[in-house]
Amino acid sequence: MASALGLGRRGLGNCWPNPAVGCVIVRDGRVIGRGWTQSGGRPHAETRALAQAGAGARGATAYVTLEPCAHHGETPPCAEALIGAGIARVVAPLSDSDPRVSGRGFDMLRAAEVEVTTGVLAQEAACDHAGFFLKVDAGRPLVTLKLAASVDGRIATGTGESKWITGPLARRAVHAMRARHDAVMVGAGTARADDPSLTVRDLGINHQPVRVVVSRHLDLPLMGQLARSAGEVPLWLCHGTGADPDRLKAWDGLGARLIPCDLSGVQIDPADLLRQLADAGLTRVFCEGGSALAASLLAADLVDELAVFNAGLAIGAEGLPAIGALGLERLAAAPRFDLREATAIGPDLIQRWVRKPR
Amino acid sequence: MASALGLGRRGLGNCWPNPAVGCVIVRDGRVIGRGWTQSGGRPHAETRALAQAGAGARGATAYVTLEPCAHHGETPPCAEALIGAGIARVVAPLSDSDPRVSGRGFDMLRAAEVEVTTGVLAQEAACDHAGFFLKVDAGRPLVTLKLAASVDGRIATGTGESKWITGPLARRAVHAMRARHDAVMVGAGTARADDPSLTVRDLGINHQPVRVVVSRHLDLPLMGQLARSAGEVPLWLCHGTGADPDRLKAWDGLGARLIPCDLSGVQIDPADLLRQLADAGLTRVFCEGGSALAASLLAADLVDELAVFNAGLAIGAEGLPAIGALGLERLAAAPRFDLREATAIGPDLIQRWVRKPR
Repeated sequence: MASALGLGRRGLGNCWPNPAVGCVIVRDGRVIGRGWTQSGGRPHAETRALAQAGAGARGATAYVTLEPCAHHGETPPCAEALIGAGIARVVAPLSDSDPRVSGRGFDMLRAAEVEVTTGVLAQEAACDHAGFFLKVDAGRPLVTLKLAASVDGRIATGTGESKWITGPLARRAVHAMRARHDAVMVGAGTARADDPSLTVRDLGINHQPVRVVVSRHLDLPLMGQLARSAGEVPLWLCHGTGADPDRLKAWDGLGARLIPCDLSGVQIDPADLLRQLADAGLTRVFCEGGSALAASLLAADLVDELAVFNAGLAIGAEGLPAIGALGLERLAAAPRFDLREATAIGPDLIQRWVRKPR
Repeated sequence: MASALGLGRRGLGNCWPNPAVGCVIVRDGRVIGRGWTQSGGRPHAETRALAQAGAGARGATAYVTLEPCAHHGETPPCAEALIGAGIARVVAPLSDSDPRVSGRGFDMLRAAEVEVTTGVLAQEAACDHAGFFLKVDAGRPLVTLKLAASVDGRIATGTGESKWITGPLARRAVHAMRARHDAVMVGAGTARADDPSLTVRDLGINHQPVRVVVSRHLDLPLMGQLARSAGEVPLWLCHGTGADPDRLKAWDGLGARLIPCDLSGVQIDPADLLRQLADAGLTRVFCEGGSALAASLLAADLVDELAVFNAGLAIGAEGLPAIGALGLERLAAAPRFDLREATAIGPDLIQRWVRKPR
């Protein structure tokens, strides 16, 4: 199962709106088929593994990291395919929470006298599928918030100098993190200040995550990196309902996808923003700031993971804060996280925290 | 030597103004004497170890973590004592930089035909003796700056709520760190806001570090914890030259030691502050904030170690910053540190950074 989970993770960021599933088929102690959900969500992991196993699948055990699907979508159900290939036993950690599947895949297998074992490495699988489950159950993608800051939590000097606080190895790790998310998201302030391309570079990866920019007024430079590359790499602009029609038209012309979102006060409502992104199919979003967007997500308790890169320098109170105003009245109301990892990366430190269960 | 260094560290925080030295005497592969610098700086480590070894010291090897002293102070020189006891070989990592010793201890030993080996674990020893060397060479103590902050570098909410950001295990670690420093230092704002006692508690340690409060105007509550305990645990008040004479008198009456310091602009000059503390004998100072004092020390490049405790919560930009304004114009001018350690401590993370060599 650990091997199947490892395969499944290869699809993270690349197979939305479908879950990133892995499958290993074993017969007589030998692996005869391996598969994971392919780019765009199909073929499914089971289809790939069964194709590899061929006739050898008869009587074999399939380790699948999520309940095999039971519904006729664009492809026939995987449960049916496993039965048809003569698989004798299916080991899976979890049921799929998608109401079209949810237990019916296992039922279909059992009805065909395939032995079904569940619960194996369920916690690990739940972690890998967290984005998919959130989309199905809560109607929003998983959100990882990245901060790259000084030891005192500043992302730039008071004069706006931010290149570079962290070193090349940390920046490379950020690109690897981008690649494992369906989309990279920033606020308009960051898009204007840094003119980023938000692509995955220097990792030998062709697939690019969607770039999402949240800009109430859509006041983004039409001559920047994002505008220039909008035809090649998907660019989604989440804007307020009152954005200037000429700007909407210009960005539409450049190839961007325009997503109108509700407002909450003067800002784009973070819950509606994520709802729109889930409706568009996203399961995992990597937010890289700036401080206002980070604060808006944190204040609404919508951040699932924190990736904090700390460089060994102090910037002081005039520096730009990593997280904007949260409007906290009491310490007890602060969004809280559990530590998962703290590791040196070159001269910098990466801290990974996950949302404390509430 | 590693064993001698371990013994020596027992004296850290407890033997100023002297260095915290360890000594192990070995004969025929057996340890026959162990010692470390005692409370207040004497007896010296060698004296203790020789007393344990007795007549067995004849022909033995002494591992000492610093060059044995060569001058007649309040006690006869340790080099003389080692020779007198018949020690055949002395292994030491480093010369003492104190001009009264500096090579003369080794010379005295060699002149008496004692074999001398140096350089063993020199880096580790330099680290342990860093505070003593800074006092002798630079006329200031080593400064460790502690920050206990949220992931976004805030030490309290906007309304001043700071109890508790970190958990009990982290706070216990802070007490252990206090105990290994000669003094605990805070600014007046922290003394007023938190009414701390700044003592070492719940560790079974009797010795207390000096409490140092930096307050230009000496506007500290005369009814707080510090005032109440000034008769029992040393309290040093570093004040500006223009502080109110009545306040000076009141604090003097309570048993505090008053240390006038130069001003730099409207603040106490951090370089003069540390000079005064070194002149008073301190080798290691543990600064626990607040943000103004932290910024003043960092801006003057006078912080040797950072101990950053991070709790898994976000406070946001209205929160109090861990480090005040540094007046940085460029990122390249930021004070920089090398990562030594990042470890989970209960639900919190401790990061240890040391000043980058310049």
